[in-house]
Amino acid sequence: MKAAMKAGAKKDFPVDGIRRFLEPGPIVLVSSAWKGETNIMTMGWHMVMGFSPSLIGSYVWSENHSFDMIRKSRECVINIPTLDLAPTVVRIGNSSGREVDKFSKFGLTAVPGARVKAPLIAECHANFECKLVDSSLIRKYSLFIWEVVKAHVATSPRFPRTIHYRGDGVFMISGEDTGRYRRQFKPQNL
Amino acid sequence: MKAAMKAGAKKDFPVDGIRRFLEPGPIVLVSSAWKGETNIMTMGWHMVMGFSPSLIGSYVWSENHSFDMIRKSRECVINIPTLDLAPTVVRIGNSSGREVDKFSKFGLTAVPGARVKAPLIAECHANFECKLVDSSLIRKYSLFIWEVVKAHVATSPRFPRTIHYRGDGVFMISGEDTGRYRRQFKPQNL
Repeated sequence: MKAAMKAGAKKDFPVDGIRRFLEPGPIVLVSSAWKGETNIMTMGWHMVMGFSPSLIGSYVWSENHSFDMIRKSRECVINIPTLDLAPTVVRIGNSSGREVDKFSKFGLTAVPGARVKAPLIAECHANFECKLVDSSLIRKYSLFIWEVVKAHVATSPRFPRTIHYRGDGVFMISGEDTGRYRRQFKPQNL
Repeated sequence: MKAAMKAGAKKDFPVDGIRRFLEPGPIVLVSSAWKGETNIMTMGWHMVMGFSPSLIGSYVWSENHSFDMIRKSRECVINIPTLDLAPTVVRIGNSSGREVDKFSKFGLTAVPGARVKAPLIAECHANFECKLVDSSLIRKYSLFIWEVVKAHVATSPRFPRTIHYRGDGVFMISGEDTGRYRRQFKPQNL
């Protein structure tokens, strides 16, 4: 498959500021590594749970091939794909790492992480290296609690066009960003 | 304050289909009732955790006046405001239920719920009546796990314009909804 374009140059980003990308609710790609194998899954069920430490909660279905890989390695990278990757995101969701090498099949570029063995996806706008900090809720709720230990974000655009899943094959595409209500916020609530 | 417009006529909506509204990540308004008092808070940290039962996880800061109201009543309503309510959403976030009656102050209409004592906000596009099904994660993670037991959704528009928070006073406004990738999904993955 033809490779997608890599995102532009990236800079280190403060881990306590990644809500900017995750809180609006985009579909993300989760990359993982375990025993010489890598994998990628799509994920729509996640939430910010803290700034410092920078915590993310995420639901991962136990039938996913990635489930054991991230549970055993206790690491993953949460990658933010933009609209141009939407067809690839769908294909990643349609296929299983049991049968295909998703980096190779979808022409994606694995970049080594700084703090985790799971690879970053170069074509994504942002990459958040995560370590599993609480596995006690996995069995009952399929809930993984992650700490983002390192964040890499493309220097431009400031706010990428992300895709947000509604179910039933429908995506919402992120629209306008506005600071027009900013002066109405109490400063401590920004 | 001048009252906002009420949303149009609402219909019952299947509780296992509410991902359509919550999964794309909008800011929501959480209404509650406890001992004759009602309150409203803004909430951006939430995620879908299941279809049937219809489960939602949400983070609520313990300093919020609503924290004890929802913890003690074990109920809330998750309401979906649209773009026209953005200034009201900011003002709700700026104020505390310790000091003001938010329904009265912001001209919002409390509608009795069918399954919970917490009131629905008539001006919101959708209202999800929730019961707390797991309180064991509140102390450590401020995490409430809710079951949506009844959903009310305006009959039009099908996809409302919602507001998504990025922090720092910036909202992302939901953009285009597209089914153009729908035929690429495997049917079982819709």
